[in-house]
Amino acid sequence: MYDMTIELHANERLCLYEQIYEHIRKEIKEGKLLKGEKLPSARTLAQSLQVSRSTVDCAYGQLVAEGYIEARPYRGYYVCRIEELFSIPTKNAPEKAKEAEREKPVYDFSPNGIDMSSFPFDTWKRINRNILTFGNKELFSLGAPQGDWELRTTIGRYLHSSRGVNCRPEQIIIGAGNDYLLMLLEKILGRHVQIAMENPTYKRAYRIFNSFAYRIASVDMDEYGMRADMLWEADVTAAYVMPSHQYPTGIVMPIGRRMELLKWANAAANRYLIEDDYDSEFRYRGKPVPCLQSSDVNGKVIYIGTFSKAIAPAIRVSYMVLPFKLLDKYKADCGFYSSTVSRIDQRILNEFIRDGYFERYLNKARKKYGEKHDTLLEQIRPFLKEFVLSGENAGLHVLLTSSCGRSEQELISAAADVNASVYGLSDTYICSPKVDSTVIPALDGRKAGGTILLGYGGMELTQIREGMHCLERVLLNHSK
Amino acid sequence: MYDMTIELHANERLCLYEQIYEHIRKEIKEGKLLKGEKLPSARTLAQSLQVSRSTVDCAYGQLVAEGYIEARPYRGYYVCRIEELFSIPTKNAPEKAKEAEREKPVYDFSPNGIDMSSFPFDTWKRINRNILTFGNKELFSLGAPQGDWELRTTIGRYLHSSRGVNCRPEQIIIGAGNDYLLMLLEKILGRHVQIAMENPTYKRAYRIFNSFAYRIASVDMDEYGMRADMLWEADVTAAYVMPSHQYPTGIVMPIGRRMELLKWANAAANRYLIEDDYDSEFRYRGKPVPCLQSSDVNGKVIYIGTFSKAIAPAIRVSYMVLPFKLLDKYKADCGFYSSTVSRIDQRILNEFIRDGYFERYLNKARKKYGEKHDTLLEQIRPFLKEFVLSGENAGLHVLLTSSCGRSEQELISAAADVNASVYGLSDTYICSPKVDSTVIPALDGRKAGGTILLGYGGMELTQIREGMHCLERVLLNHSK
Repeated sequence: MYDMTIELHANERLCLYEQIYEHIRKEIKEGKLLKGEKLPSARTLAQSLQVSRSTVDCAYGQLVAEGYIEARPYRGYYVCRIEELFSIPTKNAPEKAKEAEREKPVYDFSPNGIDMSSFPFDTWKRINRNILTFGNKELFSLGAPQGDWELRTTIGRYLHSSRGVNCRPEQIIIGAGNDYLLMLLEKILGRHVQIAMENPTYKRAYRIFNSFAYRIASVDMDEYGMRADMLWEADVTAAYVMPSHQYPTGIVMPIGRRMELLKWANAAANRYLIEDDYDSEFRYRGKPVPCLQSSDVNGKVIYIGTFSKAIAPAIRVSYMVLPFKLLDKYKADCGFYSSTVSRIDQRILNEFIRDGYFERYLNKARKKYGEKHDTLLEQIRPFLKEFVLSGENAGLHVLLTSSCGRSEQELISAAADVNASVYGLSDTYICSPKVDSTVIPALDGRKAGGTILLGYGGMELTQIREGMHCLERVLLNHSK
Repeated sequence: MYDMTIELHANERLCLYEQIYEHIRKEIKEGKLLKGEKLPSARTLAQSLQVSRSTVDCAYGQLVAEGYIEARPYRGYYVCRIEELFSIPTKNAPEKAKEAEREKPVYDFSPNGIDMSSFPFDTWKRINRNILTFGNKELFSLGAPQGDWELRTTIGRYLHSSRGVNCRPEQIIIGAGNDYLLMLLEKILGRHVQIAMENPTYKRAYRIFNSFAYRIASVDMDEYGMRADMLWEADVTAAYVMPSHQYPTGIVMPIGRRMELLKWANAAANRYLIEDDYDSEFRYRGKPVPCLQSSDVNGKVIYIGTFSKAIAPAIRVSYMVLPFKLLDKYKADCGFYSSTVSRIDQRILNEFIRDGYFERYLNKARKKYGEKHDTLLEQIRPFLKEFVLSGENAGLHVLLTSSCGRSEQELISAAADVNASVYGLSDTYICSPKVDSTVIPALDGRKAGGTILLGYGGMELTQIREGMHCLERVLLNHSK
């Protein structure tokens, strides 16, 4: 039997039983106590260490619980047989520094910038506070996988009145962001989907479908959006489209093209259109254009939208409206996935929309964005000698295409020289268009060059003015 | 040219331009205005309707924007060619009622019940309030895909001190729940993973892996947990295990078996162990048993845990610790997925843990659960004549196995007669064990019957006592 000598320290960080436990554990790990070896009885060890019997019992108990030693009835404690892995050399983990933050340009014309200055922070806080104060325990329990019924009802109503969506609350699934909902959709549609995407398109969605190993067919666009004739040829079962405001081109798909897409979808049972209605809230002329789903009578459109853009990116709430056929599939295949949105956030959002704050905020934001939009367009006037403007009716960015042959890279570099970031259209292409792209309006025989995106959502009015003045100096050949 | 007669109502809900717009839209949809047909000029229509020119311009503008009509320069407005889909008969969507809520039993011994009565609601509220008050705009912006650095640092520290996890913040990914993290893991490990699971196991994880179309190999357990010898034979590259407290058996995997599993994982480059440390916080004797990841020196363990169980199910925050090799894969393949947890929630949680509230709450919860555990065990004594008890050292449920041949279904039905829900072990089996299962402790030659799970986390002490008295009446043959 192993003779155990343990130096115990009364004033140690560890209490006595832990010191005994640690000592024996270390001895076993270092091979000083061999497997099968018998330990002194608890009584003997207690006596030799001058500690109480229960202290040793505690230490032995923990060692038994973790499987270092075992108690054999009427015989005592023995060291267990343990795979000798402790001695395997450690491969050093690579040293990694904290992820560096990128330096920000002074004038960032990012198409993803948004303005939250009119966000009713206080209202949000008050709703949040009230819910926590008056909310019951249920609020902290796990909600329904699709999201709380009340929020789904509210969203359904909002989507119907503002976007023309026809749906019932049971068709709505709430999820933490569009990326998550697309991951869920993958489970619903299945693994081997062949999907058509507009070219150019929203690159983030492309990367996500790509990570699903979906076969992606790029379909060229004309001035009306995705070309239906090419969709018929594409041998796909789904098409991802942004009919109300295509990213990046800003094209609003006319009702005729929409009907052509629906005709395509109706021609086979398993065909679907995925409508990403990502920033339909922001339109500066006339009423908002209704969504594609509103024209769908046969359950062919999967409608996806988010509050991350309209409210705040930190609000991780998106929604997906499923046709009934897919809803059944969702329930069978992944209806058991837990909701990804906390009930508290769902409740706050519900009251925020239901009580009219959202609409008021949208109106304010629309006005703000409208001012920025008008300011930008004013500043763009001098550019129109050498550039063609497009995509200016909605959304939070416009497109400028050089009509005197300057390349996209030239434009971006020149902008960088004056601390301005502008973004190239070419980044949004999945591949070269198969046919002559007519996404950009007629150049009237002038020499087409590169196209840049100018976003203004996240910029102040003065920033827009100053930034555009800077761009004028470097992007225009004929400026003084 | 079409002669347009529109009845306009000054006091209508719709303003004049909307009435004109709606009228023309309806005429087109109903085929009364034919494609190619020319509309009256804006001036003419304005005169005939006695409205201002700009009202008609507005209506025409909206119709052009939506693609119902087109403006031909110098010629006027024409109805577009639109696919005649409007006439396709609507398939009636099935009538669906609001999802019914299940009636709850009086004594619900659900293994998933939890107790939030000691949750420091006020502290949580205060932190929430302070963050909203003093938080800047950044809080409402989109955070890093893996989660905020501060929270990851705090979680890393917590996991190290309480669970022995060795990791750096850059290895941690925050996500909205375990289900989401497993979906993410699917993208990291790839689609064609063959995965071993303990049998019986946590059925939810099984269903999730199943929905991934993973090939699942069920590996039998013995009293030490997943059988390593069967794992070697299983032809898999991953194994999902719960070493600290297996669900449903409650088995704590001894260090010897852990080493065997690690040896298996180390034998090939692409082998990994997925450790779900789901309720390791609750252990009633001795110190918590360290996690498997703490014994891993070669980056073979993917560690997953959640705050949904320890804090509240509504807190949709789980964490995954990736070995560096998989971290690189994550960054390359899905590092661009947006975070699913709002920054506000991340910040609240960070302060809640960092400032010691979490630990204090855990101690209280542990004490509460300990009392419930002891109460249940006290009440279980009379059952020990006819049942064998197991899984009683940790977690929030115990197992009772009939030693006089009563079947699981018999026990569940009998319990239902007194308004009590108990849960069958058989539900947690993926398939019949290949060998004689030794998950349940020796029955000493008595006639083995069914096994039921008795959870107590969500019940009050009096409920436990009353419920157990009821069960005594119906589950014991020899009770008076």
